[in-house]
Amino acid sequence: MLEPALVTLTTDFGEGSSYTAALKGAILSVNPAARILDLTHRIPPQDLAAAAYFLRETLPYFPAGSIHVIVVDPGVGSDRALLCVAWRGQFLLVPDNGCWTGLHSLAADQPVVVRLTDRKYWSSEVSSTFHGRDILAPVAGHLSLGVRPELLGPVTKDWQRLTLPQPVVTANEVRGEVIRIDSFGNLITNISAVALDVFRCVTLAGHSIGRWVQTYDDAEPGAVVALIGSSGLLEIAVVNGSAASALGIGVGAVVCVSKPGAP
Amino acid sequence: MLEPALVTLTTDFGEGSSYTAALKGAILSVNPAARILDLTHRIPPQDLAAAAYFLRETLPYFPAGSIHVIVVDPGVGSDRALLCVAWRGQFLLVPDNGCWTGLHSLAADQPVVVRLTDRKYWSSEVSSTFHGRDILAPVAGHLSLGVRPELLGPVTKDWQRLTLPQPVVTANEVRGEVIRIDSFGNLITNISAVALDVFRCVTLAGHSIGRWVQTYDDAEPGAVVALIGSSGLLEIAVVNGSAASALGIGVGAVVCVSKPGAP
Amino acid sequence: MLEPALVTLTTDFGEGSSYTAALKGAILSVNPAARILDLTHRIPPQDLAAAAYFLRETLPYFPAGSIHVIVVDPGVGSDRALLCVAWRGQFLLVPDNGCWTGLHSLAADQPVVVRLTDRKYWSSEVSSTFHGRDILAPVAGHLSLGVRPELLGPVTKDWQRLTLPQPVVTANEVRGEVIRIDSFGNLITNISAVALDVFRCVTLAGHSIGRWVQTYDDAEPGAVVALIGSSGLLEIAVVNGSAASALGIGVGAVVCVSKPGAP
Repeated sequence: MLEPALVTLTTDFGEGSSYTAALKGAILSVNPAARILDLTHRIPPQDLAAAAYFLRETLPYFPAGSIHVIVVDPGVGSDRALLCVAWRGQFLLVPDNGCWTGLHSLAADQPVVVRLTDRKYWSSEVSSTFHGRDILAPVAGHLSLGVRPELLGPVTKDWQRLTLPQPVVTANEVRGEVIRIDSFGNLITNISAVALDVFRCVTLAGHSIGRWVQTYDDAEPGAVVALIGSSGLLEIAVVNGSAASALGIGVGAVVCVSKPGAP
Repeated sequence: MLEPALVTLTTDFGEGSSYTAALKGAILSVNPAARILDLTHRIPPQDLAAAAYFLRETLPYFPAGSIHVIVVDPGVGSDRALLCVAWRGQFLLVPDNGCWTGLHSLAADQPVVVRLTDRKYWSSEVSSTFHGRDILAPVAGHLSLGVRPELLGPVTKDWQRLTLPQPVVTANEVRGEVIRIDSFGNLITNISAVALDVFRCVTLAGHSIGRWVQTYDDAEPGAVVALIGSSGLLEIAVVNGSAASALGIGVGAVVCVSKPGAP
Repeated sequence: MLEPALVTLTTDFGEGSSYTAALKGAILSVNPAARILDLTHRIPPQDLAAAAYFLRETLPYFPAGSIHVIVVDPGVGSDRALLCVAWRGQFLLVPDNGCWTGLHSLAADQPVVVRLTDRKYWSSEVSSTFHGRDILAPVAGHLSLGVRPELLGPVTKDWQRLTLPQPVVTANEVRGEVIRIDSFGNLITNISAVALDVFRCVTLAGHSIGRWVQTYDDAEPGAVVALIGSSGLLEIAVVNGSAASALGIGVGAVVCVSKPGAP
């Protein structure tokens, strides 16, 4: 466990929400020494795929011992379970909706998953609509004090998986989609560099992308370029501009990469 | 006092403001070991009622020893006082504009209030327009180092109270209003669950709300529902949607809950 | 060095970006005990002047030993250098694009600047498009663990300077411009109080500003006023309102202050 314990927050509450502040208070009420770190509060409301992409892109950078509270919870108040997932020495506290199952190398890492059932580690009062504050936050506080995950409830092999759109690879083409738009307007796709050895011609929503570059600075301002971004994924960018605005493209747009010379 | 000391920030500066960054620096210049935690910077500019609701909803979750710097200060530079309020073992540093007086159980808790007058705990230079940075932040730093509140200035019984709109309860009806819209578009009212034992029929801005539920998941997507939210207040929500957008409702809209069968 | 080490973040990534979260993880992977503090993620994309103004307004408030990671990096992936700047006992980790050179009293402070060249302190894999995560963040982690700046690379006297617009002072007039709009809509100019001893008549984009005040509360709501703000700079404000909206003014608008009676 990190000293003093590190507890991060990932939610769809929006910036500056009183829900986030209450979550922080509820963690600190159990462990007043916890170090709390905001990861994001900008997951679009109840968007499990966006949460999955965010966690996959960020959690691999965190050290063992980190505790991550993840509150994207469209099913709050239903009978969906809440989980503690031990993954690469980190701990995720998360509703059982699959949003954590997009993490890289999941199978190889063999996560240990516990269902949160022991109410001793919860708030004395549990609302119907805010299990983040009333269950996940106090459990994070107890974990950060050294409580072993096994005490929180029974180990389970039964949890929800999220199916994220996968690129389709054929002999002549890799066909994927835009999965995220960053604040610069860069279009991040689900096509990984690994799939692109001999594939080169990029089309986005039917339009051909002129140029491959190594970095955003490799072409003249305004040029529409394709590159491998910092997560190892194909990205479409406009140099010194916003590809999303310039091309009018949103999440879900189809991206194809074909072999040179392929029909 | 928490170790290391916890100092939270609540302001109307907006996200990413240089004012917030300067506030953090000014706290750390006095106590370089302070743990600083953002609560919100999204109080609407100079909106004392919004600050009051925010503090009421979040501070009860924080542990004793927490120090809260609150900078919503339309009267900065005037002769309004600045206060240190000791409340349930927590400390609030706040302009004397009443925004803290909405805290639950205020009377029962008997807050001890000190006027900040001893310049020894302030910055050496005090601007006319940013007392948060020049007075509240350094005072927070000193408090977090263990300076007793009594040293900051004289105890006072004379402070501003904020009058928040209260629901009107009659034999047949409770009449309140929407006080906050969260980032999901849920409409939070000032009508507490306690007032609702036998009252059931909800109207919002004249329209009848069809259904009471326990949680957001209890009705089909798109349904307009009434429920008791996580703060114990009546809420109007649209399942998997935004009630604010769907109904075109803003803060201040009238909400009535009447007895079944009442005229 | 502060204990536990303080590492702040200033970026143009926008709120809640996965890039920011990865940056935090990359720092903590090197020093799991680091205290991380967000300064801002709202620098407009790639806007070096805005970054310069932000740093100048905030870093002077921070204590010696603070480590500041600054990622506003339009030239990422090019051969621009990355720097560690020792300034007043604080450390800035920043691309060599001049955005830090607007800090007050630069010459007097004699910053010591090191080019980051020793890959031992970088991530083992360095992407082409995110040197913040792959170089600056791990270097911040090592610095926060006590690595001396001299170990990071060679000292250099050769770095980029940013030319910020300076007010033009003549016998009858000081002519400057709006450099920043805060979240209240106040228009902050580059004209410092020092230049204004005998100058009084303010015009903004050709319109005369009626009144000088000490603080925002010194005139009736709606009045357009000039004052010296909390950074010692001339500001145009609308009492209880937004000058930016009321006057339709943006960054770059010309502001003149003339001697009373000057033609």
